[in-house]
Amino acid sequence: MLTTKKTIRRQFILDEAAKLFKEKGYGGTSMRDLAGNVGLEAASMYNYIKSKDEILELICSRIAGIYISQLHDIEQTAASYADKVKALIRLHIRLMVEEGPAVSVANHDWKYLPEPQLTAFKQARKDYEKGFAQLIEQGMAAGEFQPLNVSVALFTILSAVRWVELWYRPGRGLSAEELEEDIITMLLSGLAK
Amino acid sequence: MLTTKKTIRRQFILDEAAKLFKEKGYGGTSMRDLAGNVGLEAASMYNYIKSKDEILELICSRIAGIYISQLHDIEQTAASYADKVKALIRLHIRLMVEEGPAVSVANHDWKYLPEPQLTAFKQARKDYEKGFAQLIEQGMAAGEFQPLNVSVALFTILSAVRWVELWYRPGRGLSAEELEEDIITMLLSGLAK
Repeated sequence: MLTTKKTIRRQFILDEAAKLFKEKGYGGTSMRDLAGNVGLEAASMYNYIKSKDEILELICSRIAGIYISQLHDIEQTAASYADKVKALIRLHIRLMVEEGPAVSVANHDWKYLPEPQLTAFKQARKDYEKGFAQLIEQGMAAGEFQPLNVSVALFTILSAVRWVELWYRPGRGLSAEELEEDIITMLLSGLAK
Repeated sequence: MLTTKKTIRRQFILDEAAKLFKEKGYGGTSMRDLAGNVGLEAASMYNYIKSKDEILELICSRIAGIYISQLHDIEQTAASYADKVKALIRLHIRLMVEEGPAVSVANHDWKYLPEPQLTAFKQARKDYEKGFAQLIEQGMAAGEFQPLNVSVALFTILSAVRWVELWYRPGRGLSAEELEEDIITMLLSGLAK
């Protein structure tokens, strides 16, 4: 088991790695660049992390784990389907705002994962999409949602929130809460009055 | 002026080039690959097209031109703002369905355009977004749309339709019209009843 101090240092290295991957690309980032950014000798960084592959694996599995566990929590609640879908939309936006670089790595660089982590990651994403689709389907069956093609509704939502990753900066004159509310209004109530 | 036959042959070369760029990447496609795909000797292909740069430029400017001219046409109509926004959403989806590879090149490979075409392309995109945002703003002022942050509404729409590029195939059990109707319902009326 990792000691707390080691865990904190390790998470710091992962956060810096995510920023570098986002900025220079996964292929364009070396362990040497990373050691320079975290202020460690390359040799001592290996006390915390074994390889670039391990870093990618830890970032992707942490983000995938957050999505899956939040989905399970939301599924268990007694809320309406509309509130469940809203909670998932909020989760996507909040993660992009609070964990931008790590989410960006999980969205784009997952394809560089080695096996068997690549297959596990794709399966986790599939499970998440399936669970999300089920909530939409159940909401339709319960008469809460409009009768649409479930895949179209799901991918429209997942795609609609993606621009936040590229656009949102704290200085845009819009708080994360306003952003969430406006996107939720668009997707649940629509632009038209 | 190009003769009709030459124009047709040239458009065929551009269409094949867009498919190759989408499949192998702009950097990964050579003029030799392209000549092979269109069934011409590299030397005779140069009668129709000068360089890879010229191909990229022609694809990007054609797609940008369609968006801009359609926006202008829509702005001139007497339709409601909701109908104007619907017409633009339809345009995005239809272009992705009918011109998938060319739209994909304009969405992703524009960054390889040489100057001054790069600046012109970015300006055209900015003008288009500005015109689209104005329709949303005018619809809000007219009381047709909910009072939201205009940029959030605009980018949610532009982002929401992007998944079609990756997902839509004629064999998905969904016609292009059903796809359009469901996405328009999501964005204008919302998922919730």
